[in-house]
Amino acid sequence: MSTLLPSRPPRAVVLLSGGLDSATTLAMARDSGFDCYCLSLDYGQRHRVELDAAARVAKALGASEHRVLRMALGEFGGSALTDNAIPVPVDGVQPGIPVTYVPARNTIMLSLALAWAEVLGSRDIFVGVNAVDYSGYPDCRPEFIAAFETLANLATKAGVEGAKLTIHAPLIDLSKADIIRHGRALGVDYAVTVSCYQADEHGRACGICDSCRLRREGFSAAGLGDPTPYLISPQESTRRPELP
Amino acid sequence: MSTLLPSRPPRAVVLLSGGLDSATTLAMARDSGFDCYCLSLDYGQRHRVELDAAARVAKALGASEHRVLRMALGEFGGSALTDNAIPVPVDGVQPGIPVTYVPARNTIMLSLALAWAEVLGSRDIFVGVNAVDYSGYPDCRPEFIAAFETLANLATKAGVEGAKLTIHAPLIDLSKADIIRHGRALGVDYAVTVSCYQADEHGRACGICDSCRLRREGFSAAGLGDPTPYLISPQESTRRPELP
Repeated sequence: MSTLLPSRPPRAVVLLSGGLDSATTLAMARDSGFDCYCLSLDYGQRHRVELDAAARVAKALGASEHRVLRMALGEFGGSALTDNAIPVPVDGVQPGIPVTYVPARNTIMLSLALAWAEVLGSRDIFVGVNAVDYSGYPDCRPEFIAAFETLANLATKAGVEGAKLTIHAPLIDLSKADIIRHGRALGVDYAVTVSCYQADEHGRACGICDSCRLRREGFSAAGLGDPTPYLISPQESTRRPELP
Repeated sequence: MSTLLPSRPPRAVVLLSGGLDSATTLAMARDSGFDCYCLSLDYGQRHRVELDAAARVAKALGASEHRVLRMALGEFGGSALTDNAIPVPVDGVQPGIPVTYVPARNTIMLSLALAWAEVLGSRDIFVGVNAVDYSGYPDCRPEFIAAFETLANLATKAGVEGAKLTIHAPLIDLSKADIIRHGRALGVDYAVTVSCYQADEHGRACGICDSCRLRREGFSAAGLGDPTPYLISPQESTRRPELP
């Protein structure tokens, strides 16, 4: 007599910052049938409150596990997100690579996801990078993701032994409005996410950094209500704020 | 009147584990005219004493700076080097990828070196991987290094802005004996290095793990005296040791 065992869903490692994009990515990974293991990095970012948001998002979207690894990238400096001496720009998205770029951050985060995936026996990594309504970061481009996937298959025991590792970047070609529409359809509660580069300890957003601007414009273009508690309203956004 | 300023030597980031290979790599980088910034990773390795060795090596070989970053890869487990429940093999180098392989370790270390290089304005990263007398790790192969170099140039602001980043792996085609001969010629004192996967807190080597075997055979093939304090002598190496 044979017994049919239910097959276990495949595992995926999902990089989760706690922002809008990574929350949507997690919802999409789950919707594709993956058992999701979420990884966040406490790298000395100014907006550490996003890590609390990541924990809420992982729980709300049914992740099997959520880990926060510590890695003091702030010791290297070189970014407005890790060095308090470099102000976060608030005058609107400019051409070129902004000072909020954190050197090699996505390479480091994908490398850590790769390590965990290998231990979990997972062949799938999800990352919420986006090359449309984004901030001009080099490590958010499709060619970067493709190069990392090539590397992953050469770097690991799994790859060498013939398992194909895939780096999924399901948002890469979507506008911010489309990302929000997808997430809403999958039940993402954006009120628990934090995108702002300089959110206060309560998770309130400045309203005027690049990340707030892209988020706000995304909700507006999607024709959906924006649940974000902005400290500066759109009407006031030409004024400089006094942030804590 | 014009003043001729002496040109500063270019900076390089050198990954330094504290073992024989990375010490030789540092000596070669310095010999090539680079101003060397050494990076070690405290990742929860069994043989943490190698980090003390790294500090001694960096000092002895005139590095401008030596940083040790902490990153708890041990939390992922999956390797005899980070999980005390998995014994280090001592029965000789076997075909295939051994349990001392740490998932994605070289990818992670190169990613961190890339971040620091970008902040330092360095275009050169040195890593002591070797594909001849090595332990069968996938991330020690030339195709892995080439893929990481491609990635590095896509991942970073420097790469996008036209600077060519180079990953130097000067040992990749050398035998262990040739590595030792090169290092000796450049003044490396191998007595301060630690290769053993389970060295004790005094830096004494077991003598029978894969790393000890490769090191010992390298000195023998090079016809040079081996300064390593092995706990088990070559004659005894079929016997199992009682390690602390």
